[in-house]
Amino acid sequence: MKLEHHHIQDANNKALKSHKDHFHFLSNHLTNKGIHVDTIIKKLQDFQVAIPSWALGAGGTRFGRFSFYGEPSNLEQKIQDVGLIHALTQTAGAVSLHIPWDVPEDYNAIKQLANSLDIKFDAVNSNTFQDQKESKESYKYGSLSNTSEAVREQAIQHNLDVINIGNKLGSKSLTVWLADGSCFPGQNNFQTALQNTENSLKTIYKGLPDDWKMLIEYKPYEPNFYSTVIQDWGTSFMLANACGEKAYSLVDLGHHLPNSNIEQIVSILMLKGKLGGFHFNDSKYGDDDLTVGSIKPYALFLIFNELVYGMQNNPQNPDLAWMIDASHNVKDPLEDIIQSLEAIQEAYAKALLVDQNLLKAAQLDNDVVTCQEILQDAYRTDVRPLLEKARLESGGALNPINAYRTLGVRNQLIKERGKNTIATGL
Amino acid sequence: MKLEHHHIQDANNKALKSHKDHFHFLSNHLTNKGIHVDTIIKKLQDFQVAIPSWALGAGGTRFGRFSFYGEPSNLEQKIQDVGLIHALTQTAGAVSLHIPWDVPEDYNAIKQLANSLDIKFDAVNSNTFQDQKESKESYKYGSLSNTSEAVREQAIQHNLDVINIGNKLGSKSLTVWLADGSCFPGQNNFQTALQNTENSLKTIYKGLPDDWKMLIEYKPYEPNFYSTVIQDWGTSFMLANACGEKAYSLVDLGHHLPNSNIEQIVSILMLKGKLGGFHFNDSKYGDDDLTVGSIKPYALFLIFNELVYGMQNNPQNPDLAWMIDASHNVKDPLEDIIQSLEAIQEAYAKALLVDQNLLKAAQLDNDVVTCQEILQDAYRTDVRPLLEKARLESGGALNPINAYRTLGVRNQLIKERGKNTIATGL
Amino acid sequence: MKLEHHHIQDANNKALKSHKDHFHFLSNHLTNKGIHVDTIIKKLQDFQVAIPSWALGAGGTRFGRFSFYGEPSNLEQKIQDVGLIHALTQTAGAVSLHIPWDVPEDYNAIKQLANSLDIKFDAVNSNTFQDQKESKESYKYGSLSNTSEAVREQAIQHNLDVINIGNKLGSKSLTVWLADGSCFPGQNNFQTALQNTENSLKTIYKGLPDDWKMLIEYKPYEPNFYSTVIQDWGTSFMLANACGEKAYSLVDLGHHLPNSNIEQIVSILMLKGKLGGFHFNDSKYGDDDLTVGSIKPYALFLIFNELVYGMQNNPQNPDLAWMIDASHNVKDPLEDIIQSLEAIQEAYAKALLVDQNLLKAAQLDNDVVTCQEILQDAYRTDVRPLLEKARLESGGALNPINAYRTLGVRNQLIKERGKNTIATGL
Amino acid sequence: MKLEHHHIQDANNKALKSHKDHFHFLSNHLTNKGIHVDTIIKKLQDFQVAIPSWALGAGGTRFGRFSFYGEPSNLEQKIQDVGLIHALTQTAGAVSLHIPWDVPEDYNAIKQLANSLDIKFDAVNSNTFQDQKESKESYKYGSLSNTSEAVREQAIQHNLDVINIGNKLGSKSLTVWLADGSCFPGQNNFQTALQNTENSLKTIYKGLPDDWKMLIEYKPYEPNFYSTVIQDWGTSFMLANACGEKAYSLVDLGHHLPNSNIEQIVSILMLKGKLGGFHFNDSKYGDDDLTVGSIKPYALFLIFNELVYGMQNNPQNPDLAWMIDASHNVKDPLEDIIQSLEAIQEAYAKALLVDQNLLKAAQLDNDVVTCQEILQDAYRTDVRPLLEKARLESGGALNPINAYRTLGVRNQLIKERGKNTIATGL
Repeated sequence: MKLEHHHIQDANNKALKSHKDHFHFLSNHLTNKGIHVDTIIKKLQDFQVAIPSWALGAGGTRFGRFSFYGEPSNLEQKIQDVGLIHALTQTAGAVSLHIPWDVPEDYNAIKQLANSLDIKFDAVNSNTFQDQKESKESYKYGSLSNTSEAVREQAIQHNLDVINIGNKLGSKSLTVWLADGSCFPGQNNFQTALQNTENSLKTIYKGLPDDWKMLIEYKPYEPNFYSTVIQDWGTSFMLANACGEKAYSLVDLGHHLPNSNIEQIVSILMLKGKLGGFHFNDSKYGDDDLTVGSIKPYALFLIFNELVYGMQNNPQNPDLAWMIDASHNVKDPLEDIIQSLEAIQEAYAKALLVDQNLLKAAQLDNDVVTCQEILQDAYRTDVRPLLEKARLESGGALNPINAYRTLGVRNQLIKERGKNTIATGL
Repeated sequence: MKLEHHHIQDANNKALKSHKDHFHFLSNHLTNKGIHVDTIIKKLQDFQVAIPSWALGAGGTRFGRFSFYGEPSNLEQKIQDVGLIHALTQTAGAVSLHIPWDVPEDYNAIKQLANSLDIKFDAVNSNTFQDQKESKESYKYGSLSNTSEAVREQAIQHNLDVINIGNKLGSKSLTVWLADGSCFPGQNNFQTALQNTENSLKTIYKGLPDDWKMLIEYKPYEPNFYSTVIQDWGTSFMLANACGEKAYSLVDLGHHLPNSNIEQIVSILMLKGKLGGFHFNDSKYGDDDLTVGSIKPYALFLIFNELVYGMQNNPQNPDLAWMIDASHNVKDPLEDIIQSLEAIQEAYAKALLVDQNLLKAAQLDNDVVTCQEILQDAYRTDVRPLLEKARLESGGALNPINAYRTLGVRNQLIKERGKNTIATGL
Repeated sequence: MKLEHHHIQDANNKALKSHKDHFHFLSNHLTNKGIHVDTIIKKLQDFQVAIPSWALGAGGTRFGRFSFYGEPSNLEQKIQDVGLIHALTQTAGAVSLHIPWDVPEDYNAIKQLANSLDIKFDAVNSNTFQDQKESKESYKYGSLSNTSEAVREQAIQHNLDVINIGNKLGSKSLTVWLADGSCFPGQNNFQTALQNTENSLKTIYKGLPDDWKMLIEYKPYEPNFYSTVIQDWGTSFMLANACGEKAYSLVDLGHHLPNSNIEQIVSILMLKGKLGGFHFNDSKYGDDDLTVGSIKPYALFLIFNELVYGMQNNPQNPDLAWMIDASHNVKDPLEDIIQSLEAIQEAYAKALLVDQNLLKAAQLDNDVVTCQEILQDAYRTDVRPLLEKARLESGGALNPINAYRTLGVRNQLIKERGKNTIATGL
Repeated sequence: MKLEHHHIQDANNKALKSHKDHFHFLSNHLTNKGIHVDTIIKKLQDFQVAIPSWALGAGGTRFGRFSFYGEPSNLEQKIQDVGLIHALTQTAGAVSLHIPWDVPEDYNAIKQLANSLDIKFDAVNSNTFQDQKESKESYKYGSLSNTSEAVREQAIQHNLDVINIGNKLGSKSLTVWLADGSCFPGQNNFQTALQNTENSLKTIYKGLPDDWKMLIEYKPYEPNFYSTVIQDWGTSFMLANACGEKAYSLVDLGHHLPNSNIEQIVSILMLKGKLGGFHFNDSKYGDDDLTVGSIKPYALFLIFNELVYGMQNNPQNPDLAWMIDASHNVKDPLEDIIQSLEAIQEAYAKALLVDQNLLKAAQLDNDVVTCQEILQDAYRTDVRPLLEKARLESGGALNPINAYRTLGVRNQLIKERGKNTIATGL
């Protein structure tokens, strides 16, 4: 299934008048405050988030999984799904593949399909947390950190293979997430595990094309429940420094201990020029992988406030790879992603409203009340008309969820694919 | 110092035109969606929050305290401060006293003063977590739970005295917060401590006037760091049931373990008719006592969504005692409270926008996406024009923080009181 | 495979001399302190822990599962595995079945097998967190709490079926663990969900034989990540009270928010006569289901200190159902369970060493230093000779892990069952 | 008051026989396992922990403080108190001073006193979290990170003064703990705050004598409740690297987010040669500053396991500065410190029992069960006879708490000092 522009236009018609009224009113108000609305609209349009190939089907937990109808069963269908989301939101212009789940059979065909849907290939992801049927060595006790050289070599080679596959598709970065760690005190020697990991990463890094980045993810626990080799940003940062200029830290919002101040981590990594990528989701308890902005939207705004500041003030930091990394256990996966994209754009738009000069002045005055007022004034503004405008001008839907439903997308997918397909992935 | 109505009107003049435009636009929009704007305005006006007498001066931590200028140094000045806040916000029509810090010398004079400022006397608070100079027994090892009968009796008598003082002022409820607990495993017998507490509370309950309520607070830790006798809502609920119909649980937002779902606790207590009061603040790590809405405003909205639902659907639950319980370490205490009141009213207004019928229908359909959309639609609405309207009609300031500054309130207080006064309290 | 007594005796021979020396020395020392060693040995022998049928194979996470060799593939083999553990430890004299994974085909044969291995049938567990192929209704959006009456009725009927199956085997209790809850704010009406759950539980309760108990488990999150209907002990306690005398709360060590004081919960539930059962495991981050005692053995000791106190002082509380509920992701499941049993017996033995009279006296004196000394004196004692003695006299192994390896149990199981069997369960 | 050797000998006499029996039995057992008991005894004797001058009086919380009798009221008395502890435990051969609380009036007299009690001067601590009466600038909004250059310069100068004072006493390190941070989003610019801190630390570093170390502490929150400039080990490590070879990270056990794996942090810092010091305490909820080993003794053992490993395998890491940093709210401060010292020595002794070669072999085999057995075997051993032996040979008390009480130390102190003295400090 493919959504044509006129389908979306039809869906927009009914709400167009109301949108115009709201945009007009808000635009006037912001302009009066000295804000360049056009610049914000342009930034929102340029902000594109990659969709992970493994999040297009229903997710689950160790207690089981309730499947969803019409899931994509191959790479082509996954890219089609991203195309549907992108057509509606104009914000999802990239896909992030997971190897070995998404190895293309025909590279040209896949590239052509993605191109036709205006979808780029973002970071490619390696998988060394599960054993594949054909694998000689097992990752049960670790991959890049394993005490066995044979296992480490297999894991390194897999990452090099992933780079190769990504390279053929036009990807420019490799994301390394390691499940490596231990479930019990004593199981691992922390120092050996870290040194093995560093050496393995360096070897992979040598195989990285010149215009690529290596993104090193961190996570405190799960699936290991006592220790994780790359447990926090400090470890990831240390490893990125050890590898070299093209290695960066990647922040996943769910990968922190309770009460972490993530916005500060983001800010410091950008100061040091080492923030390479971002995985969006939300959580209340742990790595819950919930819809972005569904639990702590203000924290998301504060993070975007730092991101916007960094993008304006930290030339030492490169462009970031943005991705959603969520699991969809009780919602239609495509609707869930659309809600996440809306929340991301909302937080970004609000952060763009923050008057950084006023904020700086209030900070220098230690006028804490005014600092808070400035952030809250931006946050309390209803920016939905800006998001609508950005989408509308790009050919997207005023209200993507409504359009998705009005246009009967899911039913059409079920018709095409059948009910009981199952997407590969988590 | 007292703010007269015309002072505030002057402060409002400049922003009046802009307010009217925004209110007009929003009001039309909401009315089109079937919302009764007038009803909401009325509810916002009726919603009054008590200010604790101990929060009008600068707070501190165990590492010290940085004082603030012009703090109130006696009960009269404290009530004057509440009067200033109320004049500006029209939301702070009550004060909550703490005994022995606030024992009036002349009851009639105090009542008259409060009356002249339109301030009521909300719940009175007992203090059995500190020793007073004249006390015979020490609370070092507990008060109502103490193994010593003499200590328990002193603590019980103190609570009865507090009721008596409150009664003379027109209060209708007693809030009991116990620091009782232990710092080390083995220090307390959990069962004895709970039974002593239950018996002590029952004795106090017997001394409660017929039209009074007893509000039982809970808290998992601090100032005791291993156990607290009333550690959670379950224990508080159990004790309230044991005491009788006039005993209720009191929820303080900061008194929960990390990641607690507080809105569910609120909802269940209202279902059971046992939610008696509420202490507002915000926190990132523990009982941080930060400005309401400064850290997790969406969580505050979700809590208000349950409160609004309960107020509409749970006749078994009584009217609630609302209070701010925050500490002001780096802001002007009065400005801090004004920001808290704004955040409370904002969350309340947004919760009032939730279409409970649509929500119920979506819940019955298990349409999780729509459930979220309904809550987020309300939350994303910029309700500040509603708050302004409610204040304006009641004689308050369009923007209380601005008015407070424009009118030079703090400078005036310093002029009247001097720089180095210190308010009693935490 | 079955372990005969003489096999174990052979394995014991080498360590017998050393055991006797250690036991003799410790026994003398304890006797001098006024402790009745024989009584403690007897209590250790009487303390029997149920093994859950689903924990005999390798566990996994949502990120996958690494299988183990020689796993039991049917109910008979599961019971044989429990028999092996019990023969070695003399502490695992019961099995806890999970329906529908463990429905017997031939009840008499199963009972006979269990009897021959000295294994009793402990609590039976219902499963309403996964859909079965033949099911008409889905539990995706809840079971006993579901808004659909049809779903609730299916879930109720399943629980009644489970009681019926358990009854045929000689079980005397039903454990109800509900995954019911929500992943997003707004998804559930908290009050409706709780009321539906209460009504469903009451209906099941009506079907409970007179000499049975209903054990109601609680858990704050997972697999739902925003709210759980029975989120804490307070809710479980409330539901148990609503159902009646035969309904009790069940505490699973991993089912608490960070930093919870679990020993206090245990103590209070026993005071109120409502602690019905216990699931042992350990965790560092959440419901990690690690080996008992592998992370926080002192907390386990403190819990046992309360259990011992309650068993001695709370006649209002019934005998408890003890069970291990852990997941074995990186260890041989049988070895993992043996380590758990050792940790449980160790904590129990140490708790039995606490001089409750001295402790009470020190508590009355507020001599906190001595309170701590008393607990630590018991905890620091190396009680392994007592555990060895208890096992030895019952016919078990001095060192069960060593015996398991010396006797080549796993290899034998692989020989009998093959490598690639997979146990049903989590 | 001063404890003479013969006082302690008298106190030891009664328990000597029992000690000898226990030591003999344990020593034989360990020797048979190939352990060099003498080496362990020697290491225990050499392990000396500094006592902070501010922990010799009763501590408190923001809710108040309950004082203790006979507290030291000046530096001389504080050193006498440390002398008493050291005489009993032979483990407290150092004191850590806090400036400006402990500025000596007569350096020679103080050095002579300390020398006579065998007490060394460990790290000196600066205080930039409180304003002193004579100070020109205020630290309310930060010290080394402050946006005001004048404040930063005052704080830098204070640290240089502290170095100077320490130098006169023979100290060899400066501990910098900063309370700097923010209470509200927006209050600070994270990047500016970190850069200011880095520059300030570098300036202090320049004033550091060649044979000194600078120890940089980290802490996630409190007294600031939104952000802390040096929030975690990663930030501290980054700053230590920026300063130079003589700068190190300092780990305080209470300064971590919930569920942190501290032993891994310790291990990695030693691998990188950047662990400079250690603050011992224990906690259940946050920076609770409880007696060492009173809540999580196994975690303490695991940390010591890494420390022992690092001391044996990481020549790149220097000798560490060990210190207790606890608060004594409900116990006699001296008894509390004695309990802490016992717990430290116990954890150290158990860690020394771990067979690192066997552990390494099991790790290489991925024999997780055996890894756990090895750690637990060491941990389950009752090592108190080793501690007694080490103390006895050094002239200390077999049981320091008993001796402290038998010898009537506190009463003597009250007699000498009076009841209502108050120690400076927290």
